[in-house]
Amino acid sequence: MTKNSIHLYYKNVTSDVIGPEHGISKSQFEQLAQTTAPRIVELNRQRNAGQTPYRDLPYNETYPQQVKTMAQFIRQDCENFVVLGIGGSALGNIALQTALNPYMYNLDDKQRNGPRLFVFDNVDPHQFGSFLEWVGDKLDKTIFNVISKSGRTAETAAQMLVIFELIEKKLGPDGLKKQVIATADAKSGTLRKIADAAGLRTLEVPDGVGGRFSVLSPVGLLSAAVCGIDIDALLAGARAMDKRCSNEAFFENPAALNAAINWHYYTRGKHISVMMPYSYSLKDLSDWYRQLWAESLGKRFDLDGKEVCVGPTPVKALGTTDQHSQVQLYREGPNDKLFTFLQVAHFSRDVTIGPAPKTAPELDYLSAQPMSRLLNAEKTATEYALLHDKRPCLTVLFDALDASTVGQFIYLFEVTTSLAGLLFHINAYDQPAVELGKDATFALMDKPGTEALAEKIRPVATMDKAFLV
Amino acid sequence: MTKNSIHLYYKNVTSDVIGPEHGISKSQFEQLAQTTAPRIVELNRQRNAGQTPYRDLPYNETYPQQVKTMAQFIRQDCENFVVLGIGGSALGNIALQTALNPYMYNLDDKQRNGPRLFVFDNVDPHQFGSFLEWVGDKLDKTIFNVISKSGRTAETAAQMLVIFELIEKKLGPDGLKKQVIATADAKSGTLRKIADAAGLRTLEVPDGVGGRFSVLSPVGLLSAAVCGIDIDALLAGARAMDKRCSNEAFFENPAALNAAINWHYYTRGKHISVMMPYSYSLKDLSDWYRQLWAESLGKRFDLDGKEVCVGPTPVKALGTTDQHSQVQLYREGPNDKLFTFLQVAHFSRDVTIGPAPKTAPELDYLSAQPMSRLLNAEKTATEYALLHDKRPCLTVLFDALDASTVGQFIYLFEVTTSLAGLLFHINAYDQPAVELGKDATFALMDKPGTEALAEKIRPVATMDKAFLV
Repeated sequence: MTKNSIHLYYKNVTSDVIGPEHGISKSQFEQLAQTTAPRIVELNRQRNAGQTPYRDLPYNETYPQQVKTMAQFIRQDCENFVVLGIGGSALGNIALQTALNPYMYNLDDKQRNGPRLFVFDNVDPHQFGSFLEWVGDKLDKTIFNVISKSGRTAETAAQMLVIFELIEKKLGPDGLKKQVIATADAKSGTLRKIADAAGLRTLEVPDGVGGRFSVLSPVGLLSAAVCGIDIDALLAGARAMDKRCSNEAFFENPAALNAAINWHYYTRGKHISVMMPYSYSLKDLSDWYRQLWAESLGKRFDLDGKEVCVGPTPVKALGTTDQHSQVQLYREGPNDKLFTFLQVAHFSRDVTIGPAPKTAPELDYLSAQPMSRLLNAEKTATEYALLHDKRPCLTVLFDALDASTVGQFIYLFEVTTSLAGLLFHINAYDQPAVELGKDATFALMDKPGTEALAEKIRPVATMDKAFLV
Repeated sequence: MTKNSIHLYYKNVTSDVIGPEHGISKSQFEQLAQTTAPRIVELNRQRNAGQTPYRDLPYNETYPQQVKTMAQFIRQDCENFVVLGIGGSALGNIALQTALNPYMYNLDDKQRNGPRLFVFDNVDPHQFGSFLEWVGDKLDKTIFNVISKSGRTAETAAQMLVIFELIEKKLGPDGLKKQVIATADAKSGTLRKIADAAGLRTLEVPDGVGGRFSVLSPVGLLSAAVCGIDIDALLAGARAMDKRCSNEAFFENPAALNAAINWHYYTRGKHISVMMPYSYSLKDLSDWYRQLWAESLGKRFDLDGKEVCVGPTPVKALGTTDQHSQVQLYREGPNDKLFTFLQVAHFSRDVTIGPAPKTAPELDYLSAQPMSRLLNAEKTATEYALLHDKRPCLTVLFDALDASTVGQFIYLFEVTTSLAGLLFHINAYDQPAVELGKDATFALMDKPGTEALAEKIRPVATMDKAFLV
């Protein structure tokens, strides 16, 4: 295993740097330590009592073995690997691919160590139709991985039914067995039933692990392994971070510090949490984090049943790209944000900037510099500018970008989320508010038995011309 | 020109729908009309006085002619078209491509009507290095469009110097003339100097038009035309919207209504503005909007020099994808957001959902349905669920998605931004806060003359190990 680590840097949230109004003072940090330490103990207790099964995923030996065996088989003659899933069954898959495989992976046969990867997490007919047009004559070299614990998620089910019909039409009745892998509940549910009846190869969505905590299970691991990502290193990274995040000494535990600082700022009116990766590779990990953070902490009721309506709003801003889009607001707009930078200390690949033309000596400062130096300079420069305006900034520093550090990052933010849930005193593992929208979709699709709800929705479903301009 | 239009639907922000605490009452709408109407007049006055040059771009006849002539020439034997730009010199280009060309454009030779398009708006060595590895032996079939008014934007300059060196090495001293097009200030600046000295083909970044308002100039039009997008229809759409947005009758002017409703909610504590397109094609227009909105309205001082620190934080959430990531927070978290849905009434391409397996009759409701029906049902269902929790919702309805309606959308939001600037009483056209970060980057890159600033930045540039865990 690599020796690369990730680190949390928190000096730039202190009052020494950004002053007493927006910074955290020494005594406030002591207070945070006192408040948070019992929560670390409590989370360790919950974990030992088997109440947070996601924590044990990096130690599971069956899953990676199953996944690697299946991946090895798939890689023999698969040219395209397609994930059909949504939310927790897609964001982790996308994030691992962007983080650990080359930018030109799908386009460049030479840079690709595995089949092309596509992840569809929508039901847009323009998008999916364009893909179907392309893949239509390549079905026998394409494997579809349908991921859904229940199999009743409307988007995934719809995509699956399109693909099933296409495969049966083009490859005959045995096509499904060869081209489809179902990742589903081990025993019951719609997708399990369908998979068993059709004789599909299957993997398991573990029990008790919510979608947003499932990336280190077969949900996220299969597409990664198929595309040549070292899932053993990924899991080893998660285990290494587990030790650090279980540490009951507040100031040595990066998840505890991260959760406490986030909670501190939320309770003081900074309701927006901006994640700003200075690495294109890390950009989709920010979307994975957006789900983890929003769905876990956005809650109406606390654990005592009191109405609280809490939850920081996570925002992704990619450096340097979004400097040229958002930094004006971030510096001069309301001081209502906590910034978390992601920084890579050493890039495994670099590009040297060429010489400036003689007519433009003002660009000489760039000549012969590694591009990574410019990227990291821009990170520091943006942070400096934000600090100048007293905006609090955290940094997650990656020694380097590899499967181990990505595994560490995932685990760090999962445990941070659990601890933040305890600080907010809410249930971080449910998502009660997503049901009404699902039911309303059924009603709008005329699913039998939903007529009463359909009647209620009618005023929203029909636009009132008096308000249409 | 197509007869398709876009429309603003605003019933679901009224108190009739979401109640008096979060909805806008009839008398509040009358008040908004009285406040906003003089601003429409004022904006029309500014426009006639030549103070908002972006307003006239759709009427410029020179630019599209130059662009089409150049595009026609490029399309003859160019296989890859690469934009090097950032912020306003990239987001519009990306948005037009995603909105109006097929999802598989770069991968599928059959679906592509033009060269592949790449837009690089970063200095990430992993990303750019991967591209360079791929493009290295295709340079003679690749055209690079460097876009920067000044030519001193560090990211664009760095990318350009890498490409210049590569082209000169591989294609000799005449390579630049053939493979590079500069879109730059008409007369002065670094890129203009370089282009003139090297004999590059050039286009013009118009004077007085900020980057975020420049997509309908050669900045955004060339890559669009090269990739087969109908720029005449795009500009015609913008002109059609111009008429509607100049209308001094508040309730007939979609930009005025949009600006007033956004301003109303901001001043009542809803500081987050979520744009939620239910169309994969429209997702990157949301990123374009994020820059327009954040950079224009995020300001420390108002027009009287009073410190105000205003500015809504724009957030992109793609439907249906982000339903499974953000809706839990959006319904149960703080009621601090205004939602703007983008909806497409008629999709020009559709996909029919296949039959449900016999073992899963619970999926029968999807069988034989068009995917577009499901997508739009999910939009209505999500809106219904949000309204249930008294969250205000606007919808921009596209009759269909084509170059004209996209042109209408762009112009609608540009004028909305100008009117919102007047309501917020700030300068919507400057971006004073981006300078410090640029200077700090120079200092960190050891640019001569920046030593004093470098000294100030040192404490931020060096991590203090006492705060690194």
